[in-house]
Amino acid sequence: MKMEVYHLYSGGKDSSLSAWILTRLGYDVKLVTISFGLLDSWCFAKETAEKLGFDHQILYLPREILEKAAGMCMKDRHPNSAIQFIHEKALEAVASIPEVERVSDGTRRDDRVPFLDLPRARSLEDRFNIAYIRPLLGLGYKTIKELTEKLFVVEIRESERLEKSDYEVELRHLLRERGVNPLEIFPKSHHQSRVLGWRKKDI
Amino acid sequence: MKMEVYHLYSGGKDSSLSAWILTRLGYDVKLVTISFGLLDSWCFAKETAEKLGFDHQILYLPREILEKAAGMCMKDRHPNSAIQFIHEKALEAVASIPEVERVSDGTRRDDRVPFLDLPRARSLEDRFNIAYIRPLLGLGYKTIKELTEKLFVVEIRESERLEKSDYEVELRHLLRERGVNPLEIFPKSHHQSRVLGWRKKDI
Repeated sequence: MKMEVYHLYSGGKDSSLSAWILTRLGYDVKLVTISFGLLDSWCFAKETAEKLGFDHQILYLPREILEKAAGMCMKDRHPNSAIQFIHEKALEAVASIPEVERVSDGTRRDDRVPFLDLPRARSLEDRFNIAYIRPLLGLGYKTIKELTEKLFVVEIRESERLEKSDYEVELRHLLRERGVNPLEIFPKSHHQSRVLGWRKKDI
Repeated sequence: MKMEVYHLYSGGKDSSLSAWILTRLGYDVKLVTISFGLLDSWCFAKETAEKLGFDHQILYLPREILEKAAGMCMKDRHPNSAIQFIHEKALEAVASIPEVERVSDGTRRDDRVPFLDLPRARSLEDRFNIAYIRPLLGLGYKTIKELTEKLFVVEIRESERLEKSDYEVELRHLLRERGVNPLEIFPKSHHQSRVLGWRKKDI
């Protein structure tokens, strides 16, 4: 009996570590990268997924979601509620695919956003009749660091410069299109990671 | 480089599943069962630990902790704050052993007690300079059920009858010694689990 799990994937170290944990628990991991069709920034996640040897697919979400998120950024002058909004829509979109029984992501214990509190996590499971799995939720930064360093070759850069595939890239792009400087909305030195490949697959 | 983790262990399915996950993540797992020296109920955890092939040790905590917990039960007419109190003391006792760098337990996302909220979890890590790992925190009941059923032969009985090694056994005993009927304090049909052995170790 195959246990398939659809895992939201950005190519960063948290979502890569979660994917590895899921395989170690016996799951058949399908990576899913969200795109709004504005940019082909999903290609960085695809590249990393292929290097790591995972199945990978792109899931396109309606552009209205990104537009609503951009509006939230402009209203709040901060990206938190927009990122949270996109992530919930992304989880719901994956969970609503008929063959999907398990959905996962790389959110951490110490994350503020995106993050589903217990009632929201249960609501997601109940509304879509799926299991929602967060392999990193019970790990602190020390544990995530020691596992990541053992497993992956990682590139760390500032968000603005990094070639990656998270929601931020298209959100920043849409803000620029609207004449808004993303640097006025997103925290200044926000370091992000991108996994380049395995350092050691079996630890 | 060995990554040792000291894992609070009752012989139940949650703490056994967590121990298995830790080994799958590359950790060298040392099981620790708490005893207050009133009963030898730790022997059930030891037996299961041996069947599963894990290192196992008993950590004796001062009897005053159990006495204070019994007092809390009698005051509250409910065991929740007592169980929470004992668990925090148990985590602190393991974390304060000099060679310990990582402490873990089998607490779940859906548990009310024992459970450390985020500030308490971080405080434990900071005060004792350890990593606190909860492998089940990001898993819901469906996921825990499917993994447990694949991995273990499990016996499920009512708490009052089950041969197991959690805090409840000695707490109930001390209450009876004080002339208090535990059935008036603990919820009536509280089913507990004990792992008897592997069904399939590698899934």
